Amino acid sequence: MTEPVRGGAAPTNGVLPAALPPTARATTALLTDKYELTMLQAALANGTAHRHCVFEVFTRRLPAGRRYGVLAGTGRVLESLPHFRFEDADLAFLEETGVVDARTIDFLSGYRFTGSILGYAEGETFFAGSPVLQVEGTFAEAVLLETLILSILNFDSAVASAASRMTSAAVGRPCLEMGARRTHEQAAVAAARAAVVGGFAGTSNLEAGYRYGLETIGTAAHAFTLLHDDELGAFKAQVAALGTGTTLLVDTYDVRQGVINAIEAAGTGLGAIRLDSGDLGGLAVEVRHQLDELGATGTKITVTSDLDEHAIAALAAVPVDSYGVGTSLVTGSGAPTCGMVYKLVARADSTGVLQPVAKASPGKPSQGGRKSAARRLGHDGRAVEEVLVTGDDEAVARWSPDSDDLRPLLVPLVMDGAVDSRWVGPHGVENAVRAHQASRSELPRGARRLSAGDPAIPTVSLTLP
Amino acid sequence: MTEPVRGGAAPTNGVLPAALPPTARATTALLTDKYELTMLQAALANGTAHRHCVFEVFTRRLPAGRRYGVLAGTGRVLESLPHFRFEDADLAFLEETGVVDARTIDFLSGYRFTGSILGYAEGETFFAGSPVLQVEGTFAEAVLLETLILSILNFDSAVASAASRMTSAAVGRPCLEMGARRTHEQAAVAAARAAVVGGFAGTSNLEAGYRYGLETIGTAAHAFTLLHDDELGAFKAQVAALGTGTTLLVDTYDVRQGVINAIEAAGTGLGAIRLDSGDLGGLAVEVRHQLDELGATGTKITVTSDLDEHAIAALAAVPVDSYGVGTSLVTGSGAPTCGMVYKLVARADSTGVLQPVAKASPGKPSQGGRKSAARRLGHDGRAVEEVLVTGDDEAVARWSPDSDDLRPLLVPLVMDGAVDSRWVGPHGVENAVRAHQASRSELPRGARRLSAGDPAIPTVSLTLP
Repeated sequence: MTEPVRGGAAPTNGVLPAALPPTARATTALLTDKYELTMLQAALANGTAHRHCVFEVFTRRLPAGRRYGVLAGTGRVLESLPHFRFEDADLAFLEETGVVDARTIDFLSGYRFTGSILGYAEGETFFAGSPVLQVEGTFAEAVLLETLILSILNFDSAVASAASRMTSAAVGRPCLEMGARRTHEQAAVAAARAAVVGGFAGTSNLEAGYRYGLETIGTAAHAFTLLHDDELGAFKAQVAALGTGTTLLVDTYDVRQGVINAIEAAGTGLGAIRLDSGDLGGLAVEVRHQLDELGATGTKITVTSDLDEHAIAALAAVPVDSYGVGTSLVTGSGAPTCGMVYKLVARADSTGVLQPVAKASPGKPSQGGRKSAARRLGHDGRAVEEVLVTGDDEAVARWSPDSDDLRPLLVPLVMDGAVDSRWVGPHGVENAVRAHQASRSELPRGARRLSAGDPAIPTVSLTLP
Repeated sequence: MTEPVRGGAAPTNGVLPAALPPTARATTALLTDKYELTMLQAALANGTAHRHCVFEVFTRRLPAGRRYGVLAGTGRVLESLPHFRFEDADLAFLEETGVVDARTIDFLSGYRFTGSILGYAEGETFFAGSPVLQVEGTFAEAVLLETLILSILNFDSAVASAASRMTSAAVGRPCLEMGARRTHEQAAVAAARAAVVGGFAGTSNLEAGYRYGLETIGTAAHAFTLLHDDELGAFKAQVAALGTGTTLLVDTYDVRQGVINAIEAAGTGLGAIRLDSGDLGGLAVEVRHQLDELGATGTKITVTSDLDEHAIAALAAVPVDSYGVGTSLVTGSGAPTCGMVYKLVARADSTGVLQPVAKASPGKPSQGGRKSAARRLGHDGRAVEEVLVTGDDEAVARWSPDSDDLRPLLVPLVMDGAVDSRWVGPHGVENAVRAHQASRSELPRGARRLSAGDPAIPTVSLTLP
């Protein structure tokens, strides 16, 4: 084997002093597996690179026991797409390290995605086989996007899917995202965004506030109390700086004394106290009683220690006002990735006619051919089936529901290379929040059960003639 | 509650057409939880912000059953540190959204970390309580780094810890990182780097090759075969473009026919075939036999389907030449975050004397006071104990081992704000690779067992007078 690190031959981007952080890159194009480019090289050589193709993103199965998944990240895919271009430094790297040949580098230098992308609206619920994204273009332009699209959708959807379960369990009480420290620093920003798509009310992450206009929250950690000579002094300092509406963290030493100190420092108008350790349920009952006795009947209680959807559900009958969730949220609550794949489902033959294709690998089922999708609704407006529409390619591409009980799921995201701006930036997040609320409300009530079980609705095929 | 998305009030960074991708930010300073800044505001107001402090990063426990952890990400922390500064756009965001007051914004505008950081060498093994990073400076400058440091170390160490188990299980056969599509697109780059620290031989991730000089690998996916009219045509195209040394993926349709086609296309000098589905152990035996019969005795076999350390171990007796690992690697093989925390362990009192501090929260043990650390070695050079040195602050700060059987673990990383360049860039990765190899070799042989058990060595305290 060669050495794992080329060392001296490497670009100096990572070596200090650099003008910008290593992540501050003008392009997203190298966030890609090498094999996308070597495939391109081989396909350019024999002309198949220009065959018209349809790729679909779907998951083969939901995480064990999950009732539904929540699509998130579509807006981030669209934000990344215009920057998927190979600039001089990228091309020089590919050339110097021999990744691909000169013809391929020449092709990459002019690369822009000029195809079209349909997909489920961000925030929509999905099931095994749901074609959540459909990328159409030449093989050359579509194959290169595989890794970036999957990275984004697999991570963001894992977080949004967990978030949705948590906000269901919270039954209207606000959930606040605080997991930045438990995942990669840039993943943290995406996680905050995905959490909001899944119904969270805000995030501790400032960069997520900056990039996506998310509501940011947070007041103080144990370090602030420990910094001071005593807890009362710390609380007085916090209230002086942040006002009586602040949240005081009362469990650094003794919770009962902490609550006394909190009210002494802020008065009975204190905004909230936070509990971050111990038996949160029992403590919250005691603290509520204590606060009420002290006259702080409007002071809220927020809890934040290792919560997941099950812990939240267990606190439903306890006088808690909001939940701060970290680790389990940003790691997908046991399912840190969605298992979405990016599969070629149709490509032109030598005469230019699109043909369905599918591999036959054991244990990795996939169905050839372009799909459309709709959700069938019952008389009460609740979803009853996920309908995957298959059959003749042109018929599927043209298909739209002919009856009111079918809600079509594919919406245009990119047309001939042009990104639909409805889905990007803060506005895109707002749309995704609404889409998720509507989609979850439409599912059968059993969909919100946290216990392991079958998908909320079955998936059926509708084959067009 | 307020709305989770401020929408119109948000900066336009995320709205197309933007000149740069949303991640292309000149600073790392907003990759931070809001409460770091509100604590700063309160501490600036009463003067405690300038108290001298020592923060330590450690984990309270290893993931259940793990024998050791592997520290990774230190180099990335150091690469991010010089960019932890608040520029005009960041300050405007903080002001417009009312995160902190004018005095705090004024302080942040001049923020530079001027303190010092010690830590375990990147790649070093660690245990519960090991002070893997120690940040010393004023409260103001040290508290702000909490989130960014934890994000990086928690994610990167989770991946490196999983990687180390996989490379142990592979017993010398190369392991190749292919997980980019299963985690956030920037986390993928860090994961590739951490995998190499943990002993991986290369990565599919081009950006990781670009940033850190890592060896990149990969040839073709099923899509390439499906793009062509038949498998033989696809293989011939790949060999024509990439040479006979390439790796052909033989399981798109039928593995036995795939191997026949592969040798027909490339001849018996074919570099390797790849298996990505089915019963890898049984298939590898059959394929090895088939290749040998065809005369392709030098053609290697690489396997890549849902591997983790246990699957790799189960293939030890099977004629496989290398392992490609994705999902389980980048998600930490069941432990997607390390649970590291950033705790204030000592701070100056009003007279300027450093005092140990620790919270008393139930279930979250931490020990006050600055620590030093060393690994005690037995006569055979194998590690026998993790030694945490505590006691009088000045004595601990000055401490160095007085006997050869103690290997000191803390090394200087940042002195008075200046980053030690040994630990950054491609060179930093090389040093981390070596540090991990040495540290793992030094652990008792039982450390490599994959089964759940106690930490490889106990952790003991040495209290200085």
